Amino acid sequence: MIWHVYLSGEIHTDWREQIDAGVHDRGLPVQIMAPVTDHAASDDCGVEILGGEDKKVWHDRKGAGVNAIRTRTLLGRADIVAVRFGEKYKQWNAAFDAGQAAALGKSLIILRPPEHGHALKEVEAASDAVAETPEQVVRVLDYVINGRL
Amino acid sequence: MIWHVYLSGEIHTDWREQIDAGVHDRGLPVQIMAPVTDHAASDDCGVEILGGEDKKVWHDRKGAGVNAIRTRTLLGRADIVAVRFGEKYKQWNAAFDAGQAAALGKSLIILRPPEHGHALKEVEAASDAVAETPEQVVRVLDYVINGRL
Amino acid sequence: MIWHVYLSGEIHTDWREQIDAGVHDRGLPVQIMAPVTDHAASDDCGVEILGGEDKKVWHDRKGAGVNAIRTRTLLGRADIVAVRFGEKYKQWNAAFDAGQAAALGKSLIILRPPEHGHALKEVEAASDAVAETPEQVVRVLDYVINGRL
Amino acid sequence: MIWHVYLSGEIHTDWREQIDAGVHDRGLPVQIMAPVTDHAASDDCGVEILGGEDKKVWHDRKGAGVNAIRTRTLLGRADIVAVRFGEKYKQWNAAFDAGQAAALGKSLIILRPPEHGHALKEVEAASDAVAETPEQVVRVLDYVINGRL
Amino acid sequence: MIWHVYLSGEIHTDWREQIDAGVHDRGLPVQIMAPVTDHAASDDCGVEILGGEDKKVWHDRKGAGVNAIRTRTLLGRADIVAVRFGEKYKQWNAAFDAGQAAALGKSLIILRPPEHGHALKEVEAASDAVAETPEQVVRVLDYVINGRL
Amino acid sequence: MIWHVYLSGEIHTDWREQIDAGVHDRGLPVQIMAPVTDHAASDDCGVEILGGEDKKVWHDRKGAGVNAIRTRTLLGRADIVAVRFGEKYKQWNAAFDAGQAAALGKSLIILRPPEHGHALKEVEAASDAVAETPEQVVRVLDYVINGRL
Amino acid sequence: MIWHVYLSGEIHTDWREQIDAGVHDRGLPVQIMAPVTDHAASDDCGVEILGGEDKKVWHDRKGAGVNAIRTRTLLGRADIVAVRFGEKYKQWNAAFDAGQAAALGKSLIILRPPEHGHALKEVEAASDAVAETPEQVVRVLDYVINGRL
Amino acid sequence: MIWHVYLSGEIHTDWREQIDAGVHDRGLPVQIMAPVTDHAASDDCGVEILGGEDKKVWHDRKGAGVNAIRTRTLLGRADIVAVRFGEKYKQWNAAFDAGQAAALGKSLIILRPPEHGHALKEVEAASDAVAETPEQVVRVLDYVINGRL
Repeated sequence: MIWHVYLSGEIHTDWREQIDAGVHDRGLPVQIMAPVTDHAASDDCGVEILGGEDKKVWHDRKGAGVNAIRTRTLLGRADIVAVRFGEKYKQWNAAFDAGQAAALGKSLIILRPPEHGHALKEVEAASDAVAETPEQVVRVLDYVINGRL
Repeated sequence: MIWHVYLSGEIHTDWREQIDAGVHDRGLPVQIMAPVTDHAASDDCGVEILGGEDKKVWHDRKGAGVNAIRTRTLLGRADIVAVRFGEKYKQWNAAFDAGQAAALGKSLIILRPPEHGHALKEVEAASDAVAETPEQVVRVLDYVINGRL
Repeated sequence: MIWHVYLSGEIHTDWREQIDAGVHDRGLPVQIMAPVTDHAASDDCGVEILGGEDKKVWHDRKGAGVNAIRTRTLLGRADIVAVRFGEKYKQWNAAFDAGQAAALGKSLIILRPPEHGHALKEVEAASDAVAETPEQVVRVLDYVINGRL
Repeated sequence: MIWHVYLSGEIHTDWREQIDAGVHDRGLPVQIMAPVTDHAASDDCGVEILGGEDKKVWHDRKGAGVNAIRTRTLLGRADIVAVRFGEKYKQWNAAFDAGQAAALGKSLIILRPPEHGHALKEVEAASDAVAETPEQVVRVLDYVINGRL
Repeated sequence: MIWHVYLSGEIHTDWREQIDAGVHDRGLPVQIMAPVTDHAASDDCGVEILGGEDKKVWHDRKGAGVNAIRTRTLLGRADIVAVRFGEKYKQWNAAFDAGQAAALGKSLIILRPPEHGHALKEVEAASDAVAETPEQVVRVLDYVINGRL
Repeated sequence: MIWHVYLSGEIHTDWREQIDAGVHDRGLPVQIMAPVTDHAASDDCGVEILGGEDKKVWHDRKGAGVNAIRTRTLLGRADIVAVRFGEKYKQWNAAFDAGQAAALGKSLIILRPPEHGHALKEVEAASDAVAETPEQVVRVLDYVINGRL
Repeated sequence: MIWHVYLSGEIHTDWREQIDAGVHDRGLPVQIMAPVTDHAASDDCGVEILGGEDKKVWHDRKGAGVNAIRTRTLLGRADIVAVRFGEKYKQWNAAFDAGQAAALGKSLIILRPPEHGHALKEVEAASDAVAETPEQVVRVLDYVINGRL
Repeated sequence: MIWHVYLSGEIHTDWREQIDAGVHDRGLPVQIMAPVTDHAASDDCGVEILGGEDKKVWHDRKGAGVNAIRTRTLLGRADIVAVRFGEKYKQWNAAFDAGQAAALGKSLIILRPPEHGHALKEVEAASDAVAETPEQVVRVLDYVINGRL
């Protein structure tokens, strides 16, 4: 049995790679899924493929539409959605993904530094686990799948 | 026929009052709904009612749980969810509400200053309208209900 | 008990008025609902309220977004959706509404001239009744509500 | 992981073959699905198998019923529904499929020549991407699956 | 609080009137709903309103379509569906209604003479109560609403 | 891609074997599913496994409960539900299955002799195809899967 | 706007009356709903109305079926489900109601003495608030509805 | 075709091993799923992985959250949920799982000693089978899958 885990949120550190490596090291039957994490590609995919726009808002809208195809499909298949909130940027799309995941009845893991706890309190109340390191996420997966502590 | 409109997000300016006044002036059949906007009450409701906590994270968790009862009920009844993103704070709960609203199939209106457009692009792609002023939200409601421009 | 009936489709003849009059004449407990049928308002509502656009496609997109708020809410409340296909125009939004209504499990009545039967065969196979005149729609409503032939 | 893509709409040009070839050339893990595109078979399947009808409307109804079995199953399995609107015919079944896809929460790509943009504005507002060529659809799939631009 | 009760099935005895009278005598806050019980009207409504048919099967199909509008709406609003199976006829539509009610999560009461128990065993296993007289159905309603035995 | 087809209803003739043979002869990628068709086993499974009952109604209830586990699982996985109504018995469980299938959005094929058309009109109005022979069901499957007439 | 609150669980103390009185004292727009709390009536309703049984298990089954009609309807209408676990009895039906409420997406409040916290940990993790006194439940309602602490 | 069976409830006897052995002996195509049955690991997983807590209630809450990830995923995949109620402990989580399973439309088998029948009557009324031994559960599975008595 394969567990599908979608890693949403922050794309500027290597937290996904750490979780991926941890999952591999422990031999967990986990299919890791994620958004496109190449920032430039993610911003420009709409106009690159579907034609340029003069106004920034429509440039952005076209890209967001294309990225939504990926997000909707992968979020829909996920058993577990882990969302990381980092130090920088607004990260509203991360919280937006968390809201969708909660409403869809997905298991939700929040990964954030302690100082973000207060700002994330509504999101955390809808989650099953709050982690501070990628290693903790891997350990949660190992326990949840294998009962191994 | 009454239209139910939930106003989510920023609680430090009077945008809800402006929408409420506009709705009243135009005589729209709209039931405005909102979270508890008293910041201190919203933060402390959990420990005030259900008992104190030493650790901030559980203080927050208890409050978020109680507030979630209100949010879940009102969001569930809403026909339209308008979410305002302001200048300050993380506002992850606003984006989280927007994600829930989108997944529940609610009509979604985003209210934000122009400079937040890029950070909100995924949220806006899931919305039906993007406004910059409370007056625009009122005009959308008037048109949607009465066909009046 | 009030029955909610949404009248979708063609906006250039007075078929909605005929159904409305028929419902009134028979004293049926029916709440008639419809899209905004002022063609110009429907086309321009987006840019009128939310700001102008240079490109036609975004002018249209903004308007379609605002109109979708009305359609989604009223379609969601409808017990019965009647969709009229007329002589002119593409009327893809009518067929699109019919598709949404079918997927949402609404009762579906198609109103069209006989010569459109072949082009509408997939839509009609998903419908409960196919009428050729507004009077027939009124009679279906009277029978369905009162058992009166 | 296989992505399921249903190609709905116009059946008189080779747009499906072009997408199929493009998907094959790029080695995309995509299962292409489609309605029966043999026009005569699609029109006559009902009476051929289940017995003839004198009246055209029931000839059509029987065929539409049989075709609906295929459409419902494949649409239900699809992650992404791409709908092409061509130059000719009413194509109401294409818009009907798009409405069902939207209501079922599928990702939706519209493929049409620019001059159809206005007539399709409600459909496009519910879509994630609007393309003008089959090649663009293939590129969207490649990006969505592989993050490749 | 009003309870909505749909009375499906056999239309040749006065069991609905008995339940209606019992509900009235006890002053229960119950809205009784039912199909059109005029057998001729129910059979002919389709062709009467929408135009005649030569073949019996399409005569029947048109009528069944129109009646389905009523059934779908009322079944959808019902809290409780009571289905009576009588001595005569196939009554497949009664069992069909029961199947829909079960799949929709409605409370289900079966009303039948004892000798039909074996033939109804799958239906009864999906029901909440099996009654043999209309009076018992009224008493179930009184208890369920008022806790009165 | 495998198509899942559940064959519900009459268990006293070899119609399932005919469909199975036809599917095999044509090499269709179909997984045939069915209830337990051993009449005695189906009637007695409850008391055989879970302990005897003095009263027939509870003997039946226990068996129906156990059989419901099979029906619910297989019906839930089915893409297409074909229901046969034969000459004898009440066959209310067949109509009950059809009602569940309709409410669950499954494709529905009715297989019955012509003389049952009137009694089945409500069920047929909810179906996609009405066949009179097992061979016709096989041909519908072949067309639906392969577009082959 | 009326809030619907279902009070499930323990029926041997006056906790429902306390909540009812508190709601009344504060003038809250709350519709209190509950199971039948007359223990004997609740146990015997099935056999009283639908006929006696020799075996206890079927005596119980008939009663549970009838009570389920009430529970399903009221739980389905509830915005908030409060479940009390007391000192005595197994109270599996209380935990069963809580499981249904959680799966249906209802807001969930647990009311229990502190010593039951460990045994209820899975239930509490799915709840929004854990109270120890009826007064706390009333205060949660007052805050959730009025923002009043 | 693999059947997914989730074994919920009591973790102090070897009933799961007995069912597993029975399934293996009969060669049934069953995927057995279960919660983590190491009592200490199950209690402590939250604090072990995510950090310690001073208060028992939060120690418990963290563990319950992590265990919920496993339960939600496996319960969601299950065709059949068998819940055992043993002699000792409150076992509210077992009844809570049963409530979730019922609301999710899963097939439900209750396994309990006869003396618990009365306390479980509401749960049993929502179940498809009530067994007293693990061997009976295995026999139900064999019959349901193979029609073998």
